[in-house]
Amino acid sequence: MIVREKGNWLRLLFVWHGSVLPQILPRLLVLGILSGAVVYGHGHLLHYKVPLNAAPFTLFGVTLAIFLSFYNNASYDRFWEGRKQWGALLNTTRSLARQALTLGHHPADAPGPPHFVRLLIAFTHALKHQLRYTDAAPDLARLLPASVAQAVQGAAFKPVLLLLEMGRWVQQGRENGQFDTTTQLAFDHNFNLLADIVGGCERLAGTLIPYTYSVILHRTVYLYCFLLPFGLVDSIGWLTPLIVVFVGYTFMALDAIMREIEEPFGLGANDLALNTMSHTIESTLLEMVGAPVPPAPERAARYIFD
Amino acid sequence: MIVREKGNWLRLLFVWHGSVLPQILPRLLVLGILSGAVVYGHGHLLHYKVPLNAAPFTLFGVTLAIFLSFYNNASYDRFWEGRKQWGALLNTTRSLARQALTLGHHPADAPGPPHFVRLLIAFTHALKHQLRYTDAAPDLARLLPASVAQAVQGAAFKPVLLLLEMGRWVQQGRENGQFDTTTQLAFDHNFNLLADIVGGCERLAGTLIPYTYSVILHRTVYLYCFLLPFGLVDSIGWLTPLIVVFVGYTFMALDAIMREIEEPFGLGANDLALNTMSHTIESTLLEMVGAPVPPAPERAARYIFD
Amino acid sequence: MIVREKGNWLRLLFVWHGSVLPQILPRLLVLGILSGAVVYGHGHLLHYKVPLNAAPFTLFGVTLAIFLSFYNNASYDRFWEGRKQWGALLNTTRSLARQALTLGHHPADAPGPPHFVRLLIAFTHALKHQLRYTDAAPDLARLLPASVAQAVQGAAFKPVLLLLEMGRWVQQGRENGQFDTTTQLAFDHNFNLLADIVGGCERLAGTLIPYTYSVILHRTVYLYCFLLPFGLVDSIGWLTPLIVVFVGYTFMALDAIMREIEEPFGLGANDLALNTMSHTIESTLLEMVGAPVPPAPERAARYIFD
Amino acid sequence: MIVREKGNWLRLLFVWHGSVLPQILPRLLVLGILSGAVVYGHGHLLHYKVPLNAAPFTLFGVTLAIFLSFYNNASYDRFWEGRKQWGALLNTTRSLARQALTLGHHPADAPGPPHFVRLLIAFTHALKHQLRYTDAAPDLARLLPASVAQAVQGAAFKPVLLLLEMGRWVQQGRENGQFDTTTQLAFDHNFNLLADIVGGCERLAGTLIPYTYSVILHRTVYLYCFLLPFGLVDSIGWLTPLIVVFVGYTFMALDAIMREIEEPFGLGANDLALNTMSHTIESTLLEMVGAPVPPAPERAARYIFD
Amino acid sequence: MIVREKGNWLRLLFVWHGSVLPQILPRLLVLGILSGAVVYGHGHLLHYKVPLNAAPFTLFGVTLAIFLSFYNNASYDRFWEGRKQWGALLNTTRSLARQALTLGHHPADAPGPPHFVRLLIAFTHALKHQLRYTDAAPDLARLLPASVAQAVQGAAFKPVLLLLEMGRWVQQGRENGQFDTTTQLAFDHNFNLLADIVGGCERLAGTLIPYTYSVILHRTVYLYCFLLPFGLVDSIGWLTPLIVVFVGYTFMALDAIMREIEEPFGLGANDLALNTMSHTIESTLLEMVGAPVPPAPERAARYIFD
Repeated sequence: MIVREKGNWLRLLFVWHGSVLPQILPRLLVLGILSGAVVYGHGHLLHYKVPLNAAPFTLFGVTLAIFLSFYNNASYDRFWEGRKQWGALLNTTRSLARQALTLGHHPADAPGPPHFVRLLIAFTHALKHQLRYTDAAPDLARLLPASVAQAVQGAAFKPVLLLLEMGRWVQQGRENGQFDTTTQLAFDHNFNLLADIVGGCERLAGTLIPYTYSVILHRTVYLYCFLLPFGLVDSIGWLTPLIVVFVGYTFMALDAIMREIEEPFGLGANDLALNTMSHTIESTLLEMVGAPVPPAPERAARYIFD
Repeated sequence: MIVREKGNWLRLLFVWHGSVLPQILPRLLVLGILSGAVVYGHGHLLHYKVPLNAAPFTLFGVTLAIFLSFYNNASYDRFWEGRKQWGALLNTTRSLARQALTLGHHPADAPGPPHFVRLLIAFTHALKHQLRYTDAAPDLARLLPASVAQAVQGAAFKPVLLLLEMGRWVQQGRENGQFDTTTQLAFDHNFNLLADIVGGCERLAGTLIPYTYSVILHRTVYLYCFLLPFGLVDSIGWLTPLIVVFVGYTFMALDAIMREIEEPFGLGANDLALNTMSHTIESTLLEMVGAPVPPAPERAARYIFD
Repeated sequence: MIVREKGNWLRLLFVWHGSVLPQILPRLLVLGILSGAVVYGHGHLLHYKVPLNAAPFTLFGVTLAIFLSFYNNASYDRFWEGRKQWGALLNTTRSLARQALTLGHHPADAPGPPHFVRLLIAFTHALKHQLRYTDAAPDLARLLPASVAQAVQGAAFKPVLLLLEMGRWVQQGRENGQFDTTTQLAFDHNFNLLADIVGGCERLAGTLIPYTYSVILHRTVYLYCFLLPFGLVDSIGWLTPLIVVFVGYTFMALDAIMREIEEPFGLGANDLALNTMSHTIESTLLEMVGAPVPPAPERAARYIFD
Repeated sequence: MIVREKGNWLRLLFVWHGSVLPQILPRLLVLGILSGAVVYGHGHLLHYKVPLNAAPFTLFGVTLAIFLSFYNNASYDRFWEGRKQWGALLNTTRSLARQALTLGHHPADAPGPPHFVRLLIAFTHALKHQLRYTDAAPDLARLLPASVAQAVQGAAFKPVLLLLEMGRWVQQGRENGQFDTTTQLAFDHNFNLLADIVGGCERLAGTLIPYTYSVILHRTVYLYCFLLPFGLVDSIGWLTPLIVVFVGYTFMALDAIMREIEEPFGLGANDLALNTMSHTIESTLLEMVGAPVPPAPERAARYIFD
Repeated sequence: MIVREKGNWLRLLFVWHGSVLPQILPRLLVLGILSGAVVYGHGHLLHYKVPLNAAPFTLFGVTLAIFLSFYNNASYDRFWEGRKQWGALLNTTRSLARQALTLGHHPADAPGPPHFVRLLIAFTHALKHQLRYTDAAPDLARLLPASVAQAVQGAAFKPVLLLLEMGRWVQQGRENGQFDTTTQLAFDHNFNLLADIVGGCERLAGTLIPYTYSVILHRTVYLYCFLLPFGLVDSIGWLTPLIVVFVGYTFMALDAIMREIEEPFGLGANDLALNTMSHTIESTLLEMVGAPVPPAPERAARYIFD
């Protein structure tokens, strides 16, 4: 996730990082060269002109606008829902930590809230690793007793097993007389919410916008752009490359950014900063139990959080 | 559900499967031939020209854009709500399995969590079969005691009876002293959610977007496309077939894809992968109770999940 | 509610029922005749031409598009919310039946779940009759003891009194020792949901989209259509009637369909099939208590459910 | 709130009340006169023509469409959310009345459900008066014991104090042994919902759409309308006043209606009928406790509810 | 937050404060001067004309409309969600105060509801200070016992620790026999909601709309505006500066307002009035416990709340 620099409106025109420009620059160059060739060849090649004008592009505009705004809205909804799921994760882990600290009786010999809070932190990291296909082992080893870490590491759905482990911790507390049944169910209510968050993230990661949309949209955008010079050359002459590249930039940049945020848990520059958010959750939970807070993770660049 | 291949932007232009192109190709051919005939006949048939130009198509554009974007958004909402219902099914079955494993006391002689988890898996498959009008009998026989399987198999609303069966399992557990009343109600809360999921899926399957929209939209799209060559031939001449087929492709493809995802529980290439999702639910529930996980179901093609 | 026939894309162009065509045909005829007269009179009546062209219609297009898409989306949201309310009714009555069957103790002498289920069915029919301004008496007499039926029949808000009656049934069960207080509140939770459904349906039935929108939209659509021939005749000549009628068809059909679904509990061809849905609820509840399921109600036509 | 008359499509074109026409008529007259002057002066005043045509208006159209559809959607959402809050008020007061009648034990000497129901009715009227800045004193005096009425009348947030009073009634019931703790919390759950409704209405009444939108939109609409005659006169001549007034009507009417429903608790013709809704709540609650229902309040006009 | 003045439609055209005009005026001047230069130089500089016309701007219009309406809707959603979070804060703190006053037993020696209400007020102010990066110390010192104030002041997530402190107050009440476990959980339910509000505000403050959108949109708007005079000069001559500045005003004003409300907790003129809302919460809670209400905070200007 790129955090925006402060800057006036003029400087914003020349920002480089956080733009998708690097990614689409080669295509824009091809488009510019094609446009130049069209301008040069117009009326000179065998005295022939391609009989295209701007009118059909207005007709394309109808479907193109529908496709682009649909795809863009759907992508952003996915991005924002991903953010909401991680926001709910923060809220619910805080609520569970508060419950562990303020509900029930706390006899001296039971594994106390700090252990429970480490389970919550391990759950957070395990979910992050599952969504990014990275290895959860170091975080599990760092946070959990060896036996639990090993059992979880072998599982296909690690966060689910950690949730079960939390349930067992509360169950054990009830058997020890630490919690009564009603209190156990107050934890259980929040466990339900955590299960919803895990499943919600898996849904976003596992089901994209139907692939056919992506194919049709892609084709429409690129055919539109590469036909455009033929349609404009007659009326705007040597300005064609400039205008075509500018129009092409807006379409291709939109196409690129929305493909990036469609998968909000990825590692693209505009994706969610799962590492930073996991660290926030770890910090706030540790602060609640009075434990020391770890330093913030290192970042690739000044304005980019991963 | 088609899973997207990785590929660069150029290759994406020539993807075949996952496109609705095969389905609409015949209509596009007809449209192309008509356009060719219009170009050929223009001014030659009795020295007469059809006095159409591009202006009226801009006017059609208004309603067409409204219809298409409305229908498309409504279809996608149905698709995504279907996915959410199945996501909620995953979450709630996991929560119920966790409740069966961590709430109450577990005396040796009661039918334990594994039986309850099989009820949950049977419920999932029964819902899938109901939504796809397929036979639930093999899955019920595989997962349930013969008496339960038979009773359910005869019913019109199988998942509802399985839910009742789960309620009876908890009720029996309460009578055995395994759960107290409060704990029974914690299960009951999640049973309410499962009932909402069943009914939500039945709603999506049973009530489509009002049929009249479909009829008006279809007529508008096709009359628009088949009038288009007459409107363009005057200004873009021999390019008419190319442009008309391209415009026609975007409209017809959108029309086709949105009809497909309007019924998200169907078997079309862009519909939800209920089989794969049922298998995921079965796997994660079995993993929770420590039972062996069955192998993934076979698939029709590499990128297609059903 | 019209259920769509299966048919290929060609046949769909000529569907008659389920279209709003019959309803708007007279207006389209008037529009066609006017357009013909405009073509005939163009330049012949006192050598005078109405100086209109297509440009102003593009300007109208802006507001027209805003009005139509707003009104259409708001109408469809009302339709779909109505459907969701009735879906929630199905879900919640099922949940209450499950609760009656699986919670608490069931002594032999208390009026058992079948009586409670009949209250739920009577509630469903009473809501349907209230929303459609039809007489609930036959359904109440069929399902309820005479004393209850009479008391409810005299009330202005019948479903609310039936809900109160259900509350009394549970209260009585608690006084008999059948349910404890906690269990009573589990029923009460679902009674709250039923109250939300009744009020939600009353809201949809009682408050339409503000009337002024309807008036402005109607005026804009019809003035647009009846000015259109003057604007097109100069450029497309004898094709004017065809194009004008086609454009008029799309606008008027959209105007008609969205007025119909704005009131989703009505009896129009595109309205919700409350009778069919009530029958579904009756069937599934009776199946749950093991009672015989009544036959489906008769329908007006093959593809139409009321 | 205006209730729509039944009428055919022709009559709807000439409806007067429920239209915003009276309100914007003076501005339309000014616009018409300006347009007439432009037509008359065109080419005659010093042989000079204003060099404007329709093209720039298409460009304005983009922002205008964005502003209008955004503002309109946001206004309608506010209107509909206001209606939903009052719908939720109906549902929740009914649920609370049902709880008072069916939960707990009812000893003879405690102030019974009728008193509680009068608190609910007073709460409803107090909220209405707060939202409309009218005097709640007569309704409070009519419904409450003098001591309570006086205490509430002096408060800045009357509905909140009435809610507290309800909480005290339940608390007292618990101390009398009428309710146990669990039952008290079932009431408390619905009190939470009532607090959400009060706060939700205060939010709608207190925070409008940011004022700057209103200013920009207003300027754009009026400059657009008053520039339009200059842009059209060249191509449509003496028809300019007709077309300009018609286009102006659609823009200004939309501007007027959406400003009206943006504040849904006001007294405009399209605002919510809080009086009628309060009366409905009073009627249904009194029917539930078997008390006589008061007559409907008088109305200003046949089709208008306030 | 600017509260709108009453005024007729004419006066609204000349409003100054609450407009973003001051902010964008310099850019509009530059644009106007450029346009003037283009008009003056047109055809005079080396007898050369820039071959641009209005057609390409219609093509830009497609993406520009998509970008602007997407960004605007997303920004307003953020603004309105921020308002809803603060509305929920009002509702939930009121509910908690009601719970403290009406649930459980109130022995004389326990720290009573007034202390709890001060915790709620401190929580509200602490959240405001966190969101605006201001110093919470004076408000904490004013409202809390010194020990609590100091402990909280050192924390990174102050509202979370105050929530924990509230949980401890209830826990202590339970240990004193003031509340039973069930009642404790009724408080806990609302504490969960407060945790959701804190996290929801942190989400809005911490994650903006992906930065790349902002960059692309900004570039498109400004290149569009600065190319526009070249496209219009040919057809509308000396009117170019007027029209270009007007079009530029609508685009740039929209760009400015939506950037402002994208961060709804800021101090811009259109941002949420967190100070006023905190004061409202403080007033209503103090009124509930019968304590004197503090005077309203001072404001910068008559129509502006901060």
